[in-house]
Amino acid sequence: MVQMGGGPEAPLRGDRQKRELLLCVQPLPESSIGNMINEIKGEFPNLDVHYFQQPNFAFKEGDLSIPEGFIKRATYIATLNWLPPAPTSSPNLKFIQFSSAGVNHIAKHPIYTDSKIPLLSANGVHGPQIAEWVVMMDLIHHHKYVELYEQQKKREWVQRTGMGVKDRVGRRVGILGYGSIGRQVARVAQAMGSEVLAYTASPRPTPESRRDEGFIVPGTGDPEGEFPIAWYSGLDKESLHTFLRQKIDLLVLAVPLTSGETWWDQASRTKATTHFLSTAEFELLHAANPSGTYVANIARGQVIDKAALINALESKQISGAALDVTDPEPLPSDDPLWEAPNCLITPHVSGSTDVYGERAFQVLRENLRRERDGKHLVNMVDREKGY
Amino acid sequence: MVQMGGGPEAPLRGDRQKRELLLCVQPLPESSIGNMINEIKGEFPNLDVHYFQQPNFAFKEGDLSIPEGFIKRATYIATLNWLPPAPTSSPNLKFIQFSSAGVNHIAKHPIYTDSKIPLLSANGVHGPQIAEWVVMMDLIHHHKYVELYEQQKKREWVQRTGMGVKDRVGRRVGILGYGSIGRQVARVAQAMGSEVLAYTASPRPTPESRRDEGFIVPGTGDPEGEFPIAWYSGLDKESLHTFLRQKIDLLVLAVPLTSGETWWDQASRTKATTHFLSTAEFELLHAANPSGTYVANIARGQVIDKAALINALESKQISGAALDVTDPEPLPSDDPLWEAPNCLITPHVSGSTDVYGERAFQVLRENLRRERDGKHLVNMVDREKGY
Repeated sequence: MVQMGGGPEAPLRGDRQKRELLLCVQPLPESSIGNMINEIKGEFPNLDVHYFQQPNFAFKEGDLSIPEGFIKRATYIATLNWLPPAPTSSPNLKFIQFSSAGVNHIAKHPIYTDSKIPLLSANGVHGPQIAEWVVMMDLIHHHKYVELYEQQKKREWVQRTGMGVKDRVGRRVGILGYGSIGRQVARVAQAMGSEVLAYTASPRPTPESRRDEGFIVPGTGDPEGEFPIAWYSGLDKESLHTFLRQKIDLLVLAVPLTSGETWWDQASRTKATTHFLSTAEFELLHAANPSGTYVANIARGQVIDKAALINALESKQISGAALDVTDPEPLPSDDPLWEAPNCLITPHVSGSTDVYGERAFQVLRENLRRERDGKHLVNMVDREKGY
Repeated sequence: MVQMGGGPEAPLRGDRQKRELLLCVQPLPESSIGNMINEIKGEFPNLDVHYFQQPNFAFKEGDLSIPEGFIKRATYIATLNWLPPAPTSSPNLKFIQFSSAGVNHIAKHPIYTDSKIPLLSANGVHGPQIAEWVVMMDLIHHHKYVELYEQQKKREWVQRTGMGVKDRVGRRVGILGYGSIGRQVARVAQAMGSEVLAYTASPRPTPESRRDEGFIVPGTGDPEGEFPIAWYSGLDKESLHTFLRQKIDLLVLAVPLTSGETWWDQASRTKATTHFLSTAEFELLHAANPSGTYVANIARGQVIDKAALINALESKQISGAALDVTDPEPLPSDDPLWEAPNCLITPHVSGSTDVYGERAFQVLRENLRRERDGKHLVNMVDREKGY
């Protein structure tokens, strides 16, 4: 048979052996991910796609039944928490793409414990919206917006309320945990004229070590690690204290729970970062910057010693705090943190975005491309480390 | 006489003829401009500096008396609204640096009408803080912060309130008036992953025409005009309408009242931009972007037809508005704008910053350098145009 022209061989649509199956099991309807399914089908003509919506976010056995044929044929799975019953259920599986940044919730499943099927997280999809939350809270504080808002409610036009704004030019932003969120805070902070100082668990002495190897929302973040004017590292208090002495105006707690950093003490299974900020640290911040550091926490509430924080706010050791995470959560209504001075609290919502599902499928698409091109996959979970 | 070494000749400190005088007359104390006087003295060793603080912002004849000798000797004047009585009072004057972005307030003074002494504005010093105000208000709206803040006051932890956030990745930011403020909004918007569309009074077809020739706070703005993905221009409604059809998510009204743009109709002495946004324009915005444009106004209240705005908010043609300027100002307490839906108002304070005076003196320093180096001065006022 003569092949005409120089184009690639047409896909053998009739050949079931060559066709692959992407099995999607998600808590939200297909409409929630925009046009991603069509885009993926267009880019991968040999791929069949089946999308199932589970009835609840917290998946339980029996919640939905997926035909066994689909499970057996699946080449790729895109899921939040549903999994095939066993590694042998899906013999053709090349990888499982999760829509969550972590995979702790399936760590006892046989696919996690008894297989080597690549597990891929959606780490990186939170960067833009959480960075925006940090920037917003920092601006609200320094532009006195809460006071201006209360004034509007009284229909009062008093300019004095908005005077003495501290704009962000020349400020020093210290980012504790330079992961996908911290890197996007850095990008925006630099655009506002601030200086960025990065803090990581392990040292980053070389250009290679400063790269972000995870998924990055295009046009955001700091892929090459170019923004910081200085890098600091360490899990011990002494290293942390060196960092806190750098006259920091905005301290961002963004310990990356799900990227390639060792913030865990593997022996005790406790976080090295528990109460990372306590009395001594607030005193250091104040000594280095008497005009007052602003502290933003989007990591975990436990990173800050709450009693020490309330004391630092009441004594004006720091200028204020923005907390999207607290200890405990939900924060009980009688907790004194609610009304600590200059403390703004949101109920662990900074990761919210109406394009969450779509963005998680962008990670999936990126991994389909890498699989096709024989490149290493992005956001691969290290089963030993647990992320 | 033999000259030893290759260094420059030492300044002749005893030679009164060669020494110059910088006369500063400002409403705030010298401490308000940080270390600028010392920095200027260090950089210009032949310069004597005298700093006078006037008792009020609104200067009136007789408010303070400056020794005639200083006025006569003055080589440079740094002022907000004080001026020598006549052009002949300061025969050695090389320029007058104002701390305000405009100089309308002295347009009837003989130095304005009867001399050619260069008048230099402080245009550009508002860029960072007003851009931050725009970014803050846009984030507050799209991250639902007002609702979250009200919830905190009730000590309630309800995550649903913070769901459905629309983050800024891939959004289209239309900037009406691409001056120093608009350019800094562009820098930050681009860092957040948004696309920038610029609108100017006159066309900007070449790289040269896209440059910002005014003072720029270092590290901010868009000196080369690199950020916009598209440029639009015109003072007629048809041109404006073309721009408004671009599916804009955030529309920033930043008509640059004080830079080299002709937003005035010189014949009628009225603004071409009066009621630039009215019923037809809100309808166009809605048709192009049914999910709702957010409108931020930091230009002048009169740019928007208030009745049309209230209607657009009530009928949800636009998703909301952030106004730092209103028509009139102060906004009377019984004005319906105060409680229009999704409308946040601040009392014309977005230009406030605690480093305002320091930044105005950075413009002065820049002009001292340019004068010394024989370069053209920055922010020179065109007496015919009035800015």
